[in-house]
Amino acid sequence: MPSINENYLKLEKNYLFINIAKKVNAYKAAYPDADIIRMGIGDVTLPIAKCVVEAMKKGADEMGVKETFRGYEDSGAGYDFLREAVSGYYKSFGVEIKPEEIRINDGAKSDCGNIVDIFGDDNTVLITDPAYPVYVDTNLMNGRKVIYADSNEGNGFAAMPDDGVHADLIYLCSPNNPTGSAYNEQQIKAWIDYALKNKAIIIYDAAYEAFITEEGIPRSIFAVEGARKCAIEMCSLSKTAGFTGMRCGYTVIPDELTVTASDGSEVSVSQLWGRREGSKFNGVSYPVQCAAAAVFTDEGIRQTRENIAYYQENARIIASAMDELGIRYTGGKNSPYIWLKCPNGMGSWEFFDFLLEKANVVGTPGAGFGRNGEGWFRLTAFGDRERTKEAMQRLKDVLGK
Amino acid sequence: MPSINENYLKLEKNYLFINIAKKVNAYKAAYPDADIIRMGIGDVTLPIAKCVVEAMKKGADEMGVKETFRGYEDSGAGYDFLREAVSGYYKSFGVEIKPEEIRINDGAKSDCGNIVDIFGDDNTVLITDPAYPVYVDTNLMNGRKVIYADSNEGNGFAAMPDDGVHADLIYLCSPNNPTGSAYNEQQIKAWIDYALKNKAIIIYDAAYEAFITEEGIPRSIFAVEGARKCAIEMCSLSKTAGFTGMRCGYTVIPDELTVTASDGSEVSVSQLWGRREGSKFNGVSYPVQCAAAAVFTDEGIRQTRENIAYYQENARIIASAMDELGIRYTGGKNSPYIWLKCPNGMGSWEFFDFLLEKANVVGTPGAGFGRNGEGWFRLTAFGDRERTKEAMQRLKDVLGK
Repeated sequence: MPSINENYLKLEKNYLFINIAKKVNAYKAAYPDADIIRMGIGDVTLPIAKCVVEAMKKGADEMGVKETFRGYEDSGAGYDFLREAVSGYYKSFGVEIKPEEIRINDGAKSDCGNIVDIFGDDNTVLITDPAYPVYVDTNLMNGRKVIYADSNEGNGFAAMPDDGVHADLIYLCSPNNPTGSAYNEQQIKAWIDYALKNKAIIIYDAAYEAFITEEGIPRSIFAVEGARKCAIEMCSLSKTAGFTGMRCGYTVIPDELTVTASDGSEVSVSQLWGRREGSKFNGVSYPVQCAAAAVFTDEGIRQTRENIAYYQENARIIASAMDELGIRYTGGKNSPYIWLKCPNGMGSWEFFDFLLEKANVVGTPGAGFGRNGEGWFRLTAFGDRERTKEAMQRLKDVLGK
Repeated sequence: MPSINENYLKLEKNYLFINIAKKVNAYKAAYPDADIIRMGIGDVTLPIAKCVVEAMKKGADEMGVKETFRGYEDSGAGYDFLREAVSGYYKSFGVEIKPEEIRINDGAKSDCGNIVDIFGDDNTVLITDPAYPVYVDTNLMNGRKVIYADSNEGNGFAAMPDDGVHADLIYLCSPNNPTGSAYNEQQIKAWIDYALKNKAIIIYDAAYEAFITEEGIPRSIFAVEGARKCAIEMCSLSKTAGFTGMRCGYTVIPDELTVTASDGSEVSVSQLWGRREGSKFNGVSYPVQCAAAAVFTDEGIRQTRENIAYYQENARIIASAMDELGIRYTGGKNSPYIWLKCPNGMGSWEFFDFLLEKANVVGTPGAGFGRNGEGWFRLTAFGDRERTKEAMQRLKDVLGK
């Protein structure tokens, strides 16, 4: 009989969103007329930009005609037209990435999860806490030792490296999910210095970069000196262009990023990853790649930034309500998330119940993202404008003096 | 510094298609006017059916309208409408699979490669040889012991189990890539009996099932008794409906398939796989799923079967040329591949060079698929009708008496 990967049995069952759904459903069963406003799940709600839809339809049409039909993609790394578009996008904010350093994927989650396949199971992995659960789970699945860097009220939920601790792989997410905090250039530089000193590799999740508005907050780790020698960056069109249901992202591995094998040979990380993907991935759907390329045209940037601006205004409305209520929070600028301290000393789940029952508003208990999340709570700006305003009015009604 | 997964260094570099490309390019450089016919790569050439294209465009349009926009798929296992369509497709050839037993993916290669993540690295893996290289490589990447069951001229390139050998995981592909042979019901039953006796799990690749025409050749392992207790099936729309560039497939894990963990607990394979996918996959693009569902409508089946019939006629043309030349082969019926014995005792690469130089026809050396492939050669029926006829005429000219 096949043995199983026993590491799976050690994973904590992630009941966060299941528990939320259970509680909401139970409440709805008891109060069928309740007008519940959902500000919990990190999913977008605005439709895909028209020019992006049209590009996908054009790609679909091409698939229906023999002369323009596309079968397997040669490399599986993405069509040149899209890799060049992503390279051009990086250039638009001053970062030089060659198209050959970019691999197109079906969303950042896949690559975030799969990248660890190319590393040994004996590595020590450093993850900031709270964090997106994928970083932790995918390493526990291989039995790797995971250590944490605390993001907390004291450091503005922006964990910084501790020189007394050694790590081989480091996960950073900025702007951060769930805390909405964003590293400035000096903070990223400190992490790069730490990585170079430890000869570690940083896996940098830039999925929320499109929300950055402030000067001095880098939109890519490669905007900061030294990153090309120690970092892999993952990004996605999910939040940039509403692609949560379209599925397209990209991973950047600089040419010069290498690791030393046990026989002393220098191994290119990009080549290792290409070997993995060559055996386990066959590229992204052609019409999806056409849609993704349209995101990076002038018209695509214009249309998608309108959606981002809409969410940013929602975030400002939420942040302003928090200010009015005297509730501490991070995020709200440079991020679609508002990470707030539960008022009156409530725990995360206690506040969840309170908000559901008193205001019919659903958010996400911070405790679901790691131990530093206890006592904190995430609200998202991805909802409808009027509903967001309504939710904030309800919060003021139940929490105001 | 992070250690790498050292198993990657032990992988053989797969130079098969790179070597083919090199040789073809060198020949073209020397003879720029040569009219080369490519019958090597297993990619389709006919366009996607019109009704499938229209379904994708409709899905794309829905993504552009707020009321019908779709974000993250709740489960990532595929939309109900598609899982039900696949279930109905199985039913059309007499196999009962519940929609909940089906997970939609971005092509069989991903799941074939990733499924082993849920199993221990100490398992012994049995793979028929010659085989699709993904089976071997993805297990070597985890350091698993791989043993082979020989497919050869003696058994019609249909390897059968050896009761003296133990295995925990077994890969079967029928109709087979590269040999075109297809197991009949009794042969599959023998593998199921072997698996049940060894408490092994069969990973069954049914990617070419749409090419089956003969009675008695099952289109799914689940058409054969006992399979629900020992098998996982992977299938793809790549060959069924020309989806090599669209990227959609499905994996079936029966509810009752379990394995015993080291603590004695019974673990559902489907749940283990769901846990893996929950952390490393976010579902298939919605418009792609719309396109895939259209494949299984009456109109979709009609249109896609026209393409299959076209390729089948190509296969008959190739097979008939082999018959005329007195060349032994497997496949050509129930399969788009013709797997032929290189004439005059030539080796695989020797015959490759001979065909390229004398007939300007490109095929695939069997040696690239495993040691039993030496001396054999694969031709595919996925090309253009007139070019296929022309290629066969050239073979007759250079090889005829």
